[in-house]
Amino acid sequence: MHPSYRQFLYLQVQPHANDRELSDSAHRKNAALRIEGGQYNLKYGQTGNMSPEFMKRAIALALENVRSGSGGPFAALIVKDGRIVAEGTNRVTVLNDPTAHAEVVAIRKACRAIADFQLTDCDLYTTCEPCPMCLGAIYWARPARVFYAATAEDAASAGFDDAFIYDELKVAPNSRRIPMTQVLREESLAIFLAWKQQENKTPY
Amino acid sequence: MHPSYRQFLYLQVQPHANDRELSDSAHRKNAALRIEGGQYNLKYGQTGNMSPEFMKRAIALALENVRSGSGGPFAALIVKDGRIVAEGTNRVTVLNDPTAHAEVVAIRKACRAIADFQLTDCDLYTTCEPCPMCLGAIYWARPARVFYAATAEDAASAGFDDAFIYDELKVAPNSRRIPMTQVLREESLAIFLAWKQQENKTPY
Repeated sequence: MHPSYRQFLYLQVQPHANDRELSDSAHRKNAALRIEGGQYNLKYGQTGNMSPEFMKRAIALALENVRSGSGGPFAALIVKDGRIVAEGTNRVTVLNDPTAHAEVVAIRKACRAIADFQLTDCDLYTTCEPCPMCLGAIYWARPARVFYAATAEDAASAGFDDAFIYDELKVAPNSRRIPMTQVLREESLAIFLAWKQQENKTPY
Repeated sequence: MHPSYRQFLYLQVQPHANDRELSDSAHRKNAALRIEGGQYNLKYGQTGNMSPEFMKRAIALALENVRSGSGGPFAALIVKDGRIVAEGTNRVTVLNDPTAHAEVVAIRKACRAIADFQLTDCDLYTTCEPCPMCLGAIYWARPARVFYAATAEDAASAGFDDAFIYDELKVAPNSRRIPMTQVLREESLAIFLAWKQQENKTPY
């Protein structure tokens, strides 16, 4: 391993005072203790390459998330120019938010930190292959690359059956286990017409 | 149309003081004006059936979202026992949050309102067929039913090409347009082991 991988830069994100997710600094600090070396203002020389240290940190965060009872066994990082822009751990049960998967939490924080709804030139490190929701979120956020450690099969053997959702995506809407029924299509088309006619809109 | 469809109950959700999404009451009020009849404490008798009035309200919210420049042309509602638990509109660009699709916003609000990470016995009304991210969020939230108005093709013709993401889901991770590379699988398996061994965890 290249010596510079052993330590890395950490881009300090100003926490929002009202943000429960970001304010849990004690939790983050505990997780950081499991990483060799410090995490602030340290040299990291190979921004063009994947760094296993980022994944190791994500693994440490996920372990701490489990052991502290903060949520499911998943964590993710967003990295830009060799620095961590944001970190996320699974917070589904503690926040009563079924969308608070590690990747979604990290993407939301990173976008807030860089004040953009696109993660251009960013890398996402996640401890597990993304579920369909997170994969969709990744495509909307458009990072440059994704690195993952465990596979969907590993997650399934731990009780997280993302495969079911992947299978449902292939089924016609009205045949899914959660039935999806179309109504009022004609009425709804006025919305897209208004969008097309709207000036000064922000495409995304 | 059954007369009772013309008016419906609205479950008042206590806004969180710090929540930008919920606090925009003026925006919600404007949209409400487009619905015939009042929305508070009115009788709604057919909880077992789909109500087109809920979809009409979602359409009105989406139109208002476009016209007020608040985001993309999408809105969604969560309904339980004939009452609206939460509403969401697309807020991607105003919040710098690529995950702030209408369905995700509505799901997060509804779960917060009912203090649960599952939307048991709830219906989701959305003005457009969900994208893969939102479909995944729906499966994690597990509402009973989904009703949608416009199709994915309608959205594509307005410039929202969810089909691209649906296609990418079918491609092997390392062949996707956003390359997805596996690293450190062995190290990551300690996380799932810790999860299996953890007592007093909350499955989800």
